Amino acid sequence: MTDKKRLTGIFTPNVVPLDDRGGINEAELRRYVDWLIERGVHGLYPNGSTGEFTRFTAEERRRIIEIMTDQTAGRVPILAGAAEANTRETIRACERYHELGARAVAIVSPFYYRLTPAGVYAYFKEIADHSPIDVTLYNIPMFASPIDVPTVTRLAEECPKVVGIKDSSGDLPQMMRMIAAIRPRRPDFSFLTGWDAALMPMLLIGCDGGTNATSGVVPEITRKLYDLTLAGRLDQARDLQYRLLTLFDAMLYSAEFPEGFRAALKLRGIQAGVGRQPKSEVQKLELDKLSRALQCMLAAEGITGEPVGGCAVPPSIDPEQVARIVRDVVGELRKRGSI
Amino acid sequence: MTDKKRLTGIFTPNVVPLDDRGGINEAELRRYVDWLIERGVHGLYPNGSTGEFTRFTAEERRRIIEIMTDQTAGRVPILAGAAEANTRETIRACERYHELGARAVAIVSPFYYRLTPAGVYAYFKEIADHSPIDVTLYNIPMFASPIDVPTVTRLAEECPKVVGIKDSSGDLPQMMRMIAAIRPRRPDFSFLTGWDAALMPMLLIGCDGGTNATSGVVPEITRKLYDLTLAGRLDQARDLQYRLLTLFDAMLYSAEFPEGFRAALKLRGIQAGVGRQPKSEVQKLELDKLSRALQCMLAAEGITGEPVGGCAVPPSIDPEQVARIVRDVVGELRKRGSI
Amino acid sequence: MTDKKRLTGIFTPNVVPLDDRGGINEAELRRYVDWLIERGVHGLYPNGSTGEFTRFTAEERRRIIEIMTDQTAGRVPILAGAAEANTRETIRACERYHELGARAVAIVSPFYYRLTPAGVYAYFKEIADHSPIDVTLYNIPMFASPIDVPTVTRLAEECPKVVGIKDSSGDLPQMMRMIAAIRPRRPDFSFLTGWDAALMPMLLIGCDGGTNATSGVVPEITRKLYDLTLAGRLDQARDLQYRLLTLFDAMLYSAEFPEGFRAALKLRGIQAGVGRQPKSEVQKLELDKLSRALQCMLAAEGITGEPVGGCAVPPSIDPEQVARIVRDVVGELRKRGSI
Amino acid sequence: MTDKKRLTGIFTPNVVPLDDRGGINEAELRRYVDWLIERGVHGLYPNGSTGEFTRFTAEERRRIIEIMTDQTAGRVPILAGAAEANTRETIRACERYHELGARAVAIVSPFYYRLTPAGVYAYFKEIADHSPIDVTLYNIPMFASPIDVPTVTRLAEECPKVVGIKDSSGDLPQMMRMIAAIRPRRPDFSFLTGWDAALMPMLLIGCDGGTNATSGVVPEITRKLYDLTLAGRLDQARDLQYRLLTLFDAMLYSAEFPEGFRAALKLRGIQAGVGRQPKSEVQKLELDKLSRALQCMLAAEGITGEPVGGCAVPPSIDPEQVARIVRDVVGELRKRGSI
Repeated sequence: MTDKKRLTGIFTPNVVPLDDRGGINEAELRRYVDWLIERGVHGLYPNGSTGEFTRFTAEERRRIIEIMTDQTAGRVPILAGAAEANTRETIRACERYHELGARAVAIVSPFYYRLTPAGVYAYFKEIADHSPIDVTLYNIPMFASPIDVPTVTRLAEECPKVVGIKDSSGDLPQMMRMIAAIRPRRPDFSFLTGWDAALMPMLLIGCDGGTNATSGVVPEITRKLYDLTLAGRLDQARDLQYRLLTLFDAMLYSAEFPEGFRAALKLRGIQAGVGRQPKSEVQKLELDKLSRALQCMLAAEGITGEPVGGCAVPPSIDPEQVARIVRDVVGELRKRGSI
Repeated sequence: MTDKKRLTGIFTPNVVPLDDRGGINEAELRRYVDWLIERGVHGLYPNGSTGEFTRFTAEERRRIIEIMTDQTAGRVPILAGAAEANTRETIRACERYHELGARAVAIVSPFYYRLTPAGVYAYFKEIADHSPIDVTLYNIPMFASPIDVPTVTRLAEECPKVVGIKDSSGDLPQMMRMIAAIRPRRPDFSFLTGWDAALMPMLLIGCDGGTNATSGVVPEITRKLYDLTLAGRLDQARDLQYRLLTLFDAMLYSAEFPEGFRAALKLRGIQAGVGRQPKSEVQKLELDKLSRALQCMLAAEGITGEPVGGCAVPPSIDPEQVARIVRDVVGELRKRGSI
Repeated sequence: MTDKKRLTGIFTPNVVPLDDRGGINEAELRRYVDWLIERGVHGLYPNGSTGEFTRFTAEERRRIIEIMTDQTAGRVPILAGAAEANTRETIRACERYHELGARAVAIVSPFYYRLTPAGVYAYFKEIADHSPIDVTLYNIPMFASPIDVPTVTRLAEECPKVVGIKDSSGDLPQMMRMIAAIRPRRPDFSFLTGWDAALMPMLLIGCDGGTNATSGVVPEITRKLYDLTLAGRLDQARDLQYRLLTLFDAMLYSAEFPEGFRAALKLRGIQAGVGRQPKSEVQKLELDKLSRALQCMLAAEGITGEPVGGCAVPPSIDPEQVARIVRDVVGELRKRGSI
Repeated sequence: MTDKKRLTGIFTPNVVPLDDRGGINEAELRRYVDWLIERGVHGLYPNGSTGEFTRFTAEERRRIIEIMTDQTAGRVPILAGAAEANTRETIRACERYHELGARAVAIVSPFYYRLTPAGVYAYFKEIADHSPIDVTLYNIPMFASPIDVPTVTRLAEECPKVVGIKDSSGDLPQMMRMIAAIRPRRPDFSFLTGWDAALMPMLLIGCDGGTNATSGVVPEITRKLYDLTLAGRLDQARDLQYRLLTLFDAMLYSAEFPEGFRAALKLRGIQAGVGRQPKSEVQKLELDKLSRALQCMLAAEGITGEPVGGCAVPPSIDPEQVARIVRDVVGELRKRGSI
């Protein structure tokens, strides 16, 4: 168990700005770090899922932490994503990030292979026993082996270096089960939610904060939602949570993750660049459409201006009418031999 | 759209007490109805999943509604589960339950076959267009075809008879998406959660109440959680929600549903009888163990006394020690030729 | 263990023809039974999933068996689907279908609630211990509680009345695991596959036959595939299996099950009527399109003529071109204020 | 389209032997390559899932290919797993493996993030357009983004460099759908199954071969199964497929993948070493038990001797009897205050 204070607040899992050749855009990353800190996020969380850690090489991942610890210079704590190919490489990353002054590392549960709870336990135990820096577990069952309640409880009991869990499942009762099992014995253990859609209720049932991708795009809103909730101003918080949900859904579900967040960042003046995952023509068109929709949402929040052409809701189009039109046009083109 | 008030509060999805031959125990069912109303539930919800509607014949389902509307005599509103083999039979049940004075019917989404959203829509539209009584939709994706947000929104817009949805998915952001889509246009539309594990947060983000199986066993607690949450006494509510979660998990996950609820009912003095689904020997033993654990939980709430032998937590046994003992004993018995 | 021969061959899970008011069309059902037997199916399997047993009342299910046993008059064996609301009702159905001369009953695993293996075991054990007629288990994990290998093995060992399993999972290695576990001890136990897409390979690894929905539509083809495979004429069988797969996929995935089969039946001259599950307007249009596609497939098999307009494959349309056209047309209509 | 012959036969996805410090055991890897080739496998497939490519660093992955191409020296073709952090790194690996003389690369579908079909398409298109070496797609939906039939069809049509797919889903009808869609237009396109449990039926419906983990442990058996199936000696093939299934299930499901294969390798005299994924104490005990069971299976095939103590099946123990014994012993120990 550590003497340190429990991790609390909003930690931003940041996108990594890329330059024209797809490399890390160091200058823009530094500017982005400042931008986030100025807008009130409590901490930073590089090399998370939003940070596309799997799409960078091991060298690049280390370079990202070097840049960000240097630029942050202690202004806010950093949770450094440190998962590498195997426990030996991961422990080396822990050592390096400790030297660099990160507050803790975040280790995602083993992915690709789906491990049993026994395997998940053994993996984290090995790392926690050899890490010089505090470790937070990262549970994201849609992408990686799930960390179940008995496993996190056992790790919390056996490993003083394990100081918290970031849970991106969005499963509220599961979060309660973890808190009920661990908090009495480890009051220093931190529970952070990665599911922006439920940030307010998660805080109300006892979470210490969140690692929320929306805070990388609208840090003002995510931070305000956190503050209002803690202050017990629930009517205002609820209203904000609903608006954040709309924005979160748009960025999360309308494009391959995290491209929606990357698109929104550009609207905020951060040159996030083009993501490394290739896009089909249709995906590019959809991303343009999303960008326009996001700009309208941000304009409604007073954060940006409206896009050219405005945000008046277009008259909704009856899909059956469209189907009819398409049929007619296609029929006509066929008759003329055009298709 | 109806003039009636939105459905609010805690509706109990009640277990049906059975007699020694497995038939409906009418006297006990009447006594149970009184017991629930006296303990403050806002309404009753017979023929739901807790009520094992699929394990009764069509005649029995109708009989259950007859008994309960008669015994309730208007003291509290009744949501009558009315799903039958097909829409024609279901509409007949709607007509009958309307005559009997039910407040509304609840119709589970089509099950066995997993329908597409278009099929789910067509099913409810057909029923809503012909029902003389208000209809609530029942979404329980773990058992039946899911009702997605566009479908419930479309039904809310097109069908004035559809006055609410009971959602047992426990998916909090999904509930918010439904509320955001429907409430502005249908202020009379009711959102009820069937997931006791998240009752407090669901109420805090705008739900009107719940159809909660725990309220059939500990109506005092579920009702109090509802009242504390609405009164904004969040610290007390949170504490109660955690305790209710423990009880809910025990009843839900330790036996074939709803046998845990049936077992708990007996501890409350309601003779729920033996469920219709046969049990293996191992299942019977586990149910006994669960019953004892439940009694300790209820005793901790001051609702029952402790079981014979008390509830002191037994010293936990190291599973590896047990494994060693078993190995030794089995080896010894083998040597002696006993096994 | 019974003296009777193992169940082998193709058992048709038949659709129930409906009349204009949605009732059972008895005359057409009788004609359909004759039609199937004349085309060589080895047996009939009423009240299965294709037969939409859940959409009929208990009385109707019994009536269907009465009609079909009477019409069949012993020409082929009947597997009568006998699952009712609970084990008592199911056992009564077993007794009735025994009197009516069915060869065996087929009991689907408990559905709606998802039972544990222990619960599935207890359910079938109770029925098998009290049924006067042979019982086949029906495993269809996409709709009902899965029957796992240890459970079917235990039932095969303990229950002489259980004489086979119909498996619709399509999981070929799972079928092999069941055969490996049971056949040495129960040579009379029958393994039938309900997954037409893999009929040939299932027969090649040791299945005794199938309960295949395609055999209700193209009995000639399904039967021929069975014969060719058993005769070891694998090149011809493979070719037929590929063609049957195309037809199966079209009927299964292009409409709410079993509407594709119902539509195809009409092309064969069986007046299957309109299904009981309501359809949206879009679904009706899609069913028309499917019907045309099915007629082309049946025409290619020499079973029907081509539809009006012929079956020439239309030049495939580039979706991007269509998207462009739609955008232009919608833009034009918007400019004119038409939408 | 290439002039080269379609890839056919059994390609072994090999485990990488590790030394005492967890590094690549080059000498043993070279010996293992010879051992496999001598036993008749048609090709090798390093850096696949069995090869734990995710648990090696980028440098190690390249080193593995260097060793294996060098040792193989053209005796059999090599499919080199070449998935790296992003398309740029992957294309570099393709270039390197081309220089080294690999026959083709195998690229697993994007993992961690679950991509849509459009994203999967764009990913492979980018790689295929820039790779100097033939590419096989690797579909393993339990670990990575699924490659659906339209996507593989489109890639086969647009990318001459894409020469095959390795499918580890085990979904036989899905394989048929791919073959039906692609073979007429790309007769050079190869279909390989990675699901040993269904090798014989997959070959019978038209697969060209397999990338089968069992062939790394019992190459004699997997190869013989392939030969018997192609020779049409189905009774012998079926018998062998059943035996291979038993072995496959034991290695696959009794330990964290691919530890069961690693354990079996040691029984064959290949010093595979200790895997990089840490193991709990319970997992280590289970692996010992598995190793003994595997030895009995291999002994039954005449491949190894029986383990010390023999392979007589122990009298099965009634679990209820064990439960009773444990309860008695634990009760006695409690009474004595020992626990």
